Amino acid sequence: MTGNKLTDFSRLAIHTITTKPWAIETAIARYAAAGVKGITVWRQALEGRNPVLVGQAIKNAGLSVVSLCRGGFFPAFDLKNRQAAIADNKRAIDEAAALGAPYVVLVCGADPGQPLADSRRQIEDGIAACLDHARAARVKLAIEPLHPMYAADRSAINTLKQANDLCDRLQHPNLGVAVDVYHLWWDPDLEHEIARCGASGYLLAFHICDWLTPTVDMLNDRGLMGEGCIPLRTIRAWVEKTGFTGFNEVEIFSNRWWAQDQDRFLAEIKRTYLECS
Amino acid sequence: MTGNKLTDFSRLAIHTITTKPWAIETAIARYAAAGVKGITVWRQALEGRNPVLVGQAIKNAGLSVVSLCRGGFFPAFDLKNRQAAIADNKRAIDEAAALGAPYVVLVCGADPGQPLADSRRQIEDGIAACLDHARAARVKLAIEPLHPMYAADRSAINTLKQANDLCDRLQHPNLGVAVDVYHLWWDPDLEHEIARCGASGYLLAFHICDWLTPTVDMLNDRGLMGEGCIPLRTIRAWVEKTGFTGFNEVEIFSNRWWAQDQDRFLAEIKRTYLECS
Repeated sequence: MTGNKLTDFSRLAIHTITTKPWAIETAIARYAAAGVKGITVWRQALEGRNPVLVGQAIKNAGLSVVSLCRGGFFPAFDLKNRQAAIADNKRAIDEAAALGAPYVVLVCGADPGQPLADSRRQIEDGIAACLDHARAARVKLAIEPLHPMYAADRSAINTLKQANDLCDRLQHPNLGVAVDVYHLWWDPDLEHEIARCGASGYLLAFHICDWLTPTVDMLNDRGLMGEGCIPLRTIRAWVEKTGFTGFNEVEIFSNRWWAQDQDRFLAEIKRTYLECS
Repeated sequence: MTGNKLTDFSRLAIHTITTKPWAIETAIARYAAAGVKGITVWRQALEGRNPVLVGQAIKNAGLSVVSLCRGGFFPAFDLKNRQAAIADNKRAIDEAAALGAPYVVLVCGADPGQPLADSRRQIEDGIAACLDHARAARVKLAIEPLHPMYAADRSAINTLKQANDLCDRLQHPNLGVAVDVYHLWWDPDLEHEIARCGASGYLLAFHICDWLTPTVDMLNDRGLMGEGCIPLRTIRAWVEKTGFTGFNEVEIFSNRWWAQDQDRFLAEIKRTYLECS
């Protein structure tokens, strides 16, 4: 199963962090001019802006607001910090509602000063504490499992199975999952867990980029599609087999690409989206 | 379940790579003088030496030869390279026999130029092709699952479940598993898979070190025990619960520690072995 080539940009979305050097106003204008159809807004891109007005500007430019990135970071050894995280996630939900974003992506967090099992319990408790707020705001929460190399300090949810299990336990219409190829491509159970995620109605988002060999920076050395070894078309076929018709969201953190001309980078994203994704 | 403190050095072994600046003759002398009881020999430490004589020198110094590191690296797109890998693994088995090492640790390999599923099949085929040679030499092969951050180019076996499954499929008295906390600590199924590994008779080796936050180099920034967030005593308790009475092997790749005085490093290994492992 390899999957079909993409032949147009109707499902292409880009995360604002991908073109980090651009202010969000520039990103909206350039994405729209390039024929990109969706945008996922990172919270730092909203700083000093009114999210309602940013949401309107996105729609006026002909783009969809795909999601708000990111909430999460629930675990902390101190109760006060856990309560502060929950309050911040409720603010993120309100921002998403103001922006018109249907879901908030959760990077769940981890605290290297305590056992992983504790961080995992605190993530579950933290998400549970936000779900009624999310329902009232008509916003969903998308758990994004992160690569195990981030287990110490960024996310104690490291496999799609864990995210699916968490959704099973919490059983809430406003909870789902974001599948990112960068974090999950290595997992021998990936095909099975994607099918399960889709069949359970959890699959909210699909993020793409590539894995470089060597990877010289654990955070900011992601590859453009086709630069690495992730079988993008195969994984997308697994995702689409579940009935998923959402956006293919390009999310690339790359010191190398951020140092280049961003218009050229955007052109390369479009080219590799069709050729390699 | 936290596990008991270690109170002596009777089960302390060190990998020669841990004190990379030392030639193996120096390592043998210094480990023995420090009361270390076992040594795992890396193949590059044998370069230009007769493994029979090195093995005798180790025993004469009162140390046990714990294992030879490392075979593996089976996957390759080209058949010729896969055949060369099998031949090299047979040489490693012969070296282990000459040295008096009961097993060879396998870093199984991966080739970013082909799908992971292909690399995984080639690993299984490669190991299968070496097992009779291993039996004849009275040497075991220990599959070491590597952290998923090495899935592109170092090992397509990335969880203990995969290693256990592989042993289940090949069912051979000369095949087992090496558990390394650095690669496996994040896995939510770790306790279960260690129990399974032990109950199946696969558990041959236990490697310790620590995970640093941040990790600044994906290969050579491991922590000394206690410097990071791995629950060493908990994982050791899981291992010992299976009846494992082998060595606790200290395997640390660290540009930082290699740049220090190695006698001081060895003293720190002994201190943290008792205090943190």
